[in-house]
Amino acid sequence: MNRPSPTTHRVVVVGGGFGGLSAARSLRRDDVSVTLVDRRNFHLFQPLLYQVATGALAAGEIATPLRGLLKRRKNVQVVLGEVSGFDLVRRRVFVADLAGAGAHELEYDTLVVAGGAAHAYFGHGEWAPLAPALKTLEDALEIRRRILLAFELAESAEDPLARASLLTFVVVGGGPTGVELAGQVAEIARDTLRRDFRTIEPRSARIVLVEGADRVLPAMHPRLSAKAKRSLERLGVTVRLDRLVTDVDPRGVTIQPRLGPAERIASRTVIWAAGVRASELAIALAEQSGADLDRAGRITVSPQLTLPGHPEVFALGDMVRVSDGSSGVLPLPGVAPTAMQQGRYAARVIKRRLRGKADPRPFRYRNKGDLATIGRLRAVGDVKGVRLSGFIAWFAWLAVHLYYLTGLQNRLHVFIRWTAGFVTRGRGARLITGKAAHQPLRQDSTQISADDAPPLARTKVS
Amino acid sequence: MNRPSPTTHRVVVVGGGFGGLSAARSLRRDDVSVTLVDRRNFHLFQPLLYQVATGALAAGEIATPLRGLLKRRKNVQVVLGEVSGFDLVRRRVFVADLAGAGAHELEYDTLVVAGGAAHAYFGHGEWAPLAPALKTLEDALEIRRRILLAFELAESAEDPLARASLLTFVVVGGGPTGVELAGQVAEIARDTLRRDFRTIEPRSARIVLVEGADRVLPAMHPRLSAKAKRSLERLGVTVRLDRLVTDVDPRGVTIQPRLGPAERIASRTVIWAAGVRASELAIALAEQSGADLDRAGRITVSPQLTLPGHPEVFALGDMVRVSDGSSGVLPLPGVAPTAMQQGRYAARVIKRRLRGKADPRPFRYRNKGDLATIGRLRAVGDVKGVRLSGFIAWFAWLAVHLYYLTGLQNRLHVFIRWTAGFVTRGRGARLITGKAAHQPLRQDSTQISADDAPPLARTKVS
Repeated sequence: MNRPSPTTHRVVVVGGGFGGLSAARSLRRDDVSVTLVDRRNFHLFQPLLYQVATGALAAGEIATPLRGLLKRRKNVQVVLGEVSGFDLVRRRVFVADLAGAGAHELEYDTLVVAGGAAHAYFGHGEWAPLAPALKTLEDALEIRRRILLAFELAESAEDPLARASLLTFVVVGGGPTGVELAGQVAEIARDTLRRDFRTIEPRSARIVLVEGADRVLPAMHPRLSAKAKRSLERLGVTVRLDRLVTDVDPRGVTIQPRLGPAERIASRTVIWAAGVRASELAIALAEQSGADLDRAGRITVSPQLTLPGHPEVFALGDMVRVSDGSSGVLPLPGVAPTAMQQGRYAARVIKRRLRGKADPRPFRYRNKGDLATIGRLRAVGDVKGVRLSGFIAWFAWLAVHLYYLTGLQNRLHVFIRWTAGFVTRGRGARLITGKAAHQPLRQDSTQISADDAPPLARTKVS
Repeated sequence: MNRPSPTTHRVVVVGGGFGGLSAARSLRRDDVSVTLVDRRNFHLFQPLLYQVATGALAAGEIATPLRGLLKRRKNVQVVLGEVSGFDLVRRRVFVADLAGAGAHELEYDTLVVAGGAAHAYFGHGEWAPLAPALKTLEDALEIRRRILLAFELAESAEDPLARASLLTFVVVGGGPTGVELAGQVAEIARDTLRRDFRTIEPRSARIVLVEGADRVLPAMHPRLSAKAKRSLERLGVTVRLDRLVTDVDPRGVTIQPRLGPAERIASRTVIWAAGVRASELAIALAEQSGADLDRAGRITVSPQLTLPGHPEVFALGDMVRVSDGSSGVLPLPGVAPTAMQQGRYAARVIKRRLRGKADPRPFRYRNKGDLATIGRLRAVGDVKGVRLSGFIAWFAWLAVHLYYLTGLQNRLHVFIRWTAGFVTRGRGARLITGKAAHQPLRQDSTQISADDAPPLARTKVS
């Protein structure tokens, strides 16, 4: 029982992702009592989620129990629950009970909201079950199930057309997640499953990456985009640029170039990696504070990451845009290091205030680098202005991800999986789990935004 | 494409568990073509399933893709599908297509059926969703979810009675699975979660093991049963012997001693580890061959493991009883080594026949030992007549399981988890995944058979 004394400053942190966890961990002071609320009991290392989706890692290896991460922080309490709303005037957070038995309230002196973002279907939410996006561990296992099941169904398909559409994989969105996913699916077909089947030739699989902009990885330098495209093509990925997906149905997708006729791709497996939408908590905060929302649902916060009229309420991570102090916003990438730096910044502001000091200089993102991997020995990156590609970028990518992965044990497991995968080209975790295996594959339709590339699996050296 | 030549002997193996996999792997001959059918794409190392259910191991670490295990066996083809029936006269197996598009037929010259068993609720199938049993990876993750969620709900419960029932865990069945599960849940409460919570004291959790017989581990020597009971009690487990569960509802279980009044245990988490029922494939085989079925649904096979009138049809593993050649059956434990030895035996018979030789001597089980672990440094066992307990049995248990676990990589991962768990008393995989976390916990009612202890997680040194 750790009941805060009346003089203790109460901080409620909503969200146990990179931003919320960093904030909670940085508030290491006896006179601060922190309550971290999350609907999951673990912190997820999202930059490696696509490796779970492609069977390279097991689900448990990129997730770490929040209580375990925070058990030595005696001033931090973890609450498992879903935040249903706020009362910014009475300084309350409403948390829906996991047992479904109603909500309870948490009082705060300072609130830090780091609710993150999810993939967005640009008004076509009905496509979600058909072209799943990669956001949660469950998503990753479902995508893994679909990819592997497609090869299995192809192995037993009699009709050559059905077989071809089972062996066609469409990844929508050419940001880092899409590029990494397409590269991994190509490696599954070329290497992992090479000798697994007796009827089909997995290498004959067709992997199509569709991007609305005129290059993949639009947030990176054009030369790196070109290199990434060449690497993908050498792996056998068909890259279709300047194309929007206008329809998805159970038999395939329709993609539309800027000029000319639409193209139809018969495919039974479509994966969505285009566009993000901020957590709905941004809407609740905007309604009560009058802050702006952009079309991706992100709330605009002050240069100190606080809400207008509410210096005691911080919002950060993928759900916010940060004002540059005049009429614009800072150009921040939606990656883990941004959220982590913001979480630490918010903690610093809180601690300064408790010491009676003025707020520090506005939040500033320190970009230490940017890496995306395409496959075995192939990656591109930009580290402090130096553009890397090939083996060096690939090795840097591995090292950075192992270093930042939460938990020593997870690092060991991932290191073993990567080493074994590199040597054998196998993927130990290629299990079809979840739903009844009989459940037929389904799919619908899909649309691409040219600019809203999903930044989740991209890496910044924080 | 590996189409068997007309002279090739076609063997269809149903089931990729210990028995089926051993049979398929032992049929290493150019003139034999093997088709292994399973509804899952992986082999599951069931003896460690309870460690996934208690967060000690990640799901991917005890499962190995079947295609990967068999990719070097060019004469073996893997078919992912559910067997829906047989035609023993025309020698056909019907396999339901995973896409739900109907069934296809597999022709065989020899059939090996190793369909395994599931837990049985003794006529109370309606209890299954309320008191889940441990058979599949999905079961294990669901049980893990319930155990961990109960602690989370207790942390936020206001009512002391509700909190107490959330912190009460009932394991039904005192066979090896039940003993191992109860020991693990006790360790979670005592060690793993020790410092994780701020409101509840996890050590105050109550773990009750209910067994219908007069001792736990009824298949072992009474002295080992007594030792196991003492070890459990030292871990804080309440052992209730000679008691049948007569009712389970969402608020608890009712247990009935042989004499005296029924007892009510308020509990929100009940785990079922009592009784087994053979795969329904046993019924299909019995109907067509006239073989006997016992009350656990097991089919009786000849001393050569074949069906009456069908020497070309083998059945083995948890779904069979083996005739002793006169009116009785062999007393075989329902463990992995039994199935593995039977699989190898069936392969030997098939290979001898192809060489024109007579069938070998009847199947004989070679019992090399029997081990069950209770917790950290605690186990009991019986190895070639030598009864072990304490540290030596525990260490033997670890070594045997690591040795028999499928796949070098899995062994490494499990070794790391065990080492880290031993040193830190933590459990890296204690994630709540699956269903929406909001979904309330539910439970029903439960009945115990005195004799049908579930042998799945027991270990025999094969």
